[in-house]
Amino acid sequence: MKRIYSVLVENRSGVLSKVAGLFARRCFNIESLAVGETDAPDISCMTIVSSGDQRTLEQIEKQLNKKLDVIKVKTFDETSSISRELILVKVKYNKNTRGDILEIVEMMTEARIVDCSKNQMVIQMCDLPEKNNLLITLLQPTGIIEVVRTGTLAVQKCSE
Amino acid sequence: MKRIYSVLVENRSGVLSKVAGLFARRCFNIESLAVGETDAPDISCMTIVSSGDQRTLEQIEKQLNKKLDVIKVKTFDETSSISRELILVKVKYNKNTRGDILEIVEMMTEARIVDCSKNQMVIQMCDLPEKNNLLITLLQPTGIIEVVRTGTLAVQKCSE
Repeated sequence: MKRIYSVLVENRSGVLSKVAGLFARRCFNIESLAVGETDAPDISCMTIVSSGDQRTLEQIEKQLNKKLDVIKVKTFDETSSISRELILVKVKYNKNTRGDILEIVEMMTEARIVDCSKNQMVIQMCDLPEKNNLLITLLQPTGIIEVVRTGTLAVQKCSE
Repeated sequence: MKRIYSVLVENRSGVLSKVAGLFARRCFNIESLAVGETDAPDISCMTIVSSGDQRTLEQIEKQLNKKLDVIKVKTFDETSSISRELILVKVKYNKNTRGDILEIVEMMTEARIVDCSKNQMVIQMCDLPEKNNLLITLLQPTGIIEVVRTGTLAVQKCSE
């Protein structure tokens, strides 16, 4: 079972360390993590994707809520939220593989080329993690140099 | 001075906690952090944006390289890298503000609406952090409900 935690925290040095320590000590699994500012300068938002059984996932939420620097914890499953992940893939290409890469980029509608040189390209995609995984799988035969990903970001779907 | 660290680490429980602890203990500043998988299942990539004087930034790199679970540290400045950040902004709207929001989304070429209801929209943008800041500034008067950001992701520009 997978759950997304959106955790508003005080933007102070050491907060990340405390939250990471909580997960490490209790052997809670972190699948991905994204930490960025919000529209309030003193508040950051940590988006944590974790998996485990129902009991573990509830424990995580409870423990997060206990932390002093944590302002608010929201949890989402994949159906109630809009979730997106950003990925940058650097590939090598030559005259023979270029066409394949361009076809893959065209097919994955959220993908686009953001940099290129004589024999390398950087492809950006912003989509569901599963779709990003597919992009990697499709590009693998052409020669991937490097992959970086942000981890999942999520907000609750718009209410009525 | 700002620097982007792209840190390849063993995908093991506790690694994040060690790296976060290193930053906390030495009072190194973390502006943003994104942790995601790479194309190798046992290796994760942490992208850390930090700021400080030249000496502090070199210290950070040295300390990261000393950690056992760290496989490789790459550093970028903003000119040598392709950097992108993903942001999701939920806004409220009504008949009077809807036109303004649509104009802002059209003007910010990387922005798009990914969900909406009778009185709310979710806008996604994937761009430089400064551009994402501008999106927030422009949307502020219309009524922002929520902002979540991934933190910066970066790869070296394509070489010849």
